[in-house]
Amino acid sequence: MNSQQRPLGALGQDEYRILRDTDLRDYLAELPEVAALLGGSPGGWSISEVGDGNLNLVFIVRGTKGGIAVKQALPYVRLVGESWPLPLSRSHYEHLALVHQARLAPGLVPAVLHHNEALALIAMELLEPHIIMRKGLVSGTCYPHFVDHMTTFLARTLFLSSDLAVPAAQKKEGIAAFSGNHALCKITEDLIFTDPYFQAEQNRWTSPWLDATAAHFREDLDLHVAVSRLKLKFLASPEALVHGDLHTGSIMVTENETRVIDPEFAFYGPMGFDLGAVIGNLIMSYLASAGHERAPGERRSFEAWVLETIENVWAEFSRKFVGLWRDEANGDAYAATLFSGEAGAARLEAERRAYMDRLFQDMVGFSAAKIIRRILGLAHNIDFEWIEDPRLRAICEARSLRLARAMMVDAPSFRTIGAVTKAAREVRDWQPDLDR
Amino acid sequence: MNSQQRPLGALGQDEYRILRDTDLRDYLAELPEVAALLGGSPGGWSISEVGDGNLNLVFIVRGTKGGIAVKQALPYVRLVGESWPLPLSRSHYEHLALVHQARLAPGLVPAVLHHNEALALIAMELLEPHIIMRKGLVSGTCYPHFVDHMTTFLARTLFLSSDLAVPAAQKKEGIAAFSGNHALCKITEDLIFTDPYFQAEQNRWTSPWLDATAAHFREDLDLHVAVSRLKLKFLASPEALVHGDLHTGSIMVTENETRVIDPEFAFYGPMGFDLGAVIGNLIMSYLASAGHERAPGERRSFEAWVLETIENVWAEFSRKFVGLWRDEANGDAYAATLFSGEAGAARLEAERRAYMDRLFQDMVGFSAAKIIRRILGLAHNIDFEWIEDPRLRAICEARSLRLARAMMVDAPSFRTIGAVTKAAREVRDWQPDLDR
Repeated sequence: MNSQQRPLGALGQDEYRILRDTDLRDYLAELPEVAALLGGSPGGWSISEVGDGNLNLVFIVRGTKGGIAVKQALPYVRLVGESWPLPLSRSHYEHLALVHQARLAPGLVPAVLHHNEALALIAMELLEPHIIMRKGLVSGTCYPHFVDHMTTFLARTLFLSSDLAVPAAQKKEGIAAFSGNHALCKITEDLIFTDPYFQAEQNRWTSPWLDATAAHFREDLDLHVAVSRLKLKFLASPEALVHGDLHTGSIMVTENETRVIDPEFAFYGPMGFDLGAVIGNLIMSYLASAGHERAPGERRSFEAWVLETIENVWAEFSRKFVGLWRDEANGDAYAATLFSGEAGAARLEAERRAYMDRLFQDMVGFSAAKIIRRILGLAHNIDFEWIEDPRLRAICEARSLRLARAMMVDAPSFRTIGAVTKAAREVRDWQPDLDR
Repeated sequence: MNSQQRPLGALGQDEYRILRDTDLRDYLAELPEVAALLGGSPGGWSISEVGDGNLNLVFIVRGTKGGIAVKQALPYVRLVGESWPLPLSRSHYEHLALVHQARLAPGLVPAVLHHNEALALIAMELLEPHIIMRKGLVSGTCYPHFVDHMTTFLARTLFLSSDLAVPAAQKKEGIAAFSGNHALCKITEDLIFTDPYFQAEQNRWTSPWLDATAAHFREDLDLHVAVSRLKLKFLASPEALVHGDLHTGSIMVTENETRVIDPEFAFYGPMGFDLGAVIGNLIMSYLASAGHERAPGERRSFEAWVLETIENVWAEFSRKFVGLWRDEANGDAYAATLFSGEAGAARLEAERRAYMDRLFQDMVGFSAAKIIRRILGLAHNIDFEWIEDPRLRAICEARSLRLARAMMVDAPSFRTIGAVTKAAREVRDWQPDLDR
């Protein structure tokens, strides 16, 4: 049942096929490091498919010594089926991004154990007992180290791939290396920046309660201009290598550890998009929380932690990013020689603040886009979906939409992260009239 | 003396070598279409090297029937010598850009007759009796069709390679295709956005008259912040395939024709950079004009034409660009479906104006950068250089620097192109105190 009986060569090692059970077992048995890590005889390994994402197969394989996770891309969108093809090359970009992130932010992404480009397969460290952060947030769990870990990940992956850190020639090579990942970018362009704002077939929302709101969003031209500007920024602002899908479902956590997974949407894009993904999803966690209460006020301390986390993510990210800029500015932007002496240093420091203010505005806008797409678009999230009473769910969603609209249309009125959490706190008490 | 005696195969057709005289003659004789176009026997062709640019060899070859221009890249910067190497691949990008521009803006670039990638050689239509526009401007010649031709070139090459016109996947392929041209971008990054603002070895200026001004520019932190922001935009805003070096020395003209040449700096960058090159160089032409007067007021009507041209370049570009946006918006930005109906159409039209306002601001800033680099940096231009009296030259240059500084540091105060020409007119009468 192993290579003796079915040599990999004969199987066509470099030809794509979907690996399941026996095939996968045979394949892994041929990888000495993986086999050693798993331990015991391949016949005894347990293999279970656990993928709950929208796109891929994910297996957990366990041997006598340890376990691994194996992710294989399918040539179509798993959630939808073969009618929606999606290139296998996304596995190439995911691998490239994982390697890059591991270098820039060590210990914050799963270690890659093996990669087969032709099979679109990546074998990774098994994250255990980590859970998907979104699930933890739905259950009301606080993560005391999340801010520190996530802001290290964000500051280092974004700063260290930007023109502030990397010479232009090298950055342009990076942009080119990821430019082929456009099919994944296109998903974002459509599902986040376009579909929720018109009658796209795949849209859904908590009906009938949000029917009127959804209709308003489809007519709201202020919103359409604002989201179009964000889309243009997404299309043509390769500021840094972004993760591209950094919601709380792409983060695995324990009380003490944080790992960012699934960077298959990675490309050179606007930094605010990753920041907005984190902040937007935390805002949804906060505003969905009321829907998960079994007794009034039960989750108040969790909710206070979420708001505090939102504030601290920006504050700590900003502090770490600017710190890197002071210490590791090896890029071609903001040439040091133009800011020499004490006056120059002070002026550059002021310019760093101005830069962070512009980035903050981007983050506010992208946060809003991430919220709206989860309530009016195709892909929803369990923060809201697991609220059983649909009317209560709609109330939480309506609050989120109200805040998101303000953030998108009038981002400049949110001058600080405190203004964002203040608005979130206020909208938490708003009672939408859903029965008109 | 032709292929019979020295077959191309033996010469190593695909290996780079500098072609001159006999080699070039033999090479061209092997190209049936080129030979037919030239006419007569190869032995009778005249070959003269006419390159007056900074980088390449340029030959004019004439036969009994016609002539061609042959451009061959050298593996170093011609102006400086072998100590400054520069990749031959720039010829590849120039060819790519020429083909692309010919498709988007037919009749406004020289036709390519032959390209040899390995030799970094392009044979082109001989532009005759065209002259370099800058020379015509120095001599006080007006070009009545320039506005129409140049704005067609700008509007079509920029719009039709942008996210407004091209689907994202195709645009990303374009970005990747030009990403290897970073050595040429680096020249711009250094010579335009960095060197003039510190004591770079290669800088020069009209000394001693501009010594104090040059010193001020090296200390002016408002300017350093502004130019650094422009540089960041140059580094990371692939809005469209830009020419990258669109000064009046890259334009050949007759009274009735206009051709844009030398796009070897082409890459995906900010549209405002090409616009700024045109406007900045016209501003220099205007402010240098006083230096070429043989009698007071002699060039007044030329100067009035230049100012009018500056205004019309922006107005016509803007009109044509927006027209293309209305008619040929096949890109992924500003999805039509989000602006349906009469109200949507009106709102999108308003957003087009807002877009053009942002582009105008970029143009103002980049114009200023193009002016400053020609007066305080390495590469100067004949608009000023051909003013024989150095004190008079310095006066013209000081006026240009004064206007450029205002445009760069306070671009938003220039709300319209009329504000730019008004400021140019005012500074034309300013008498700088150069003897302090």
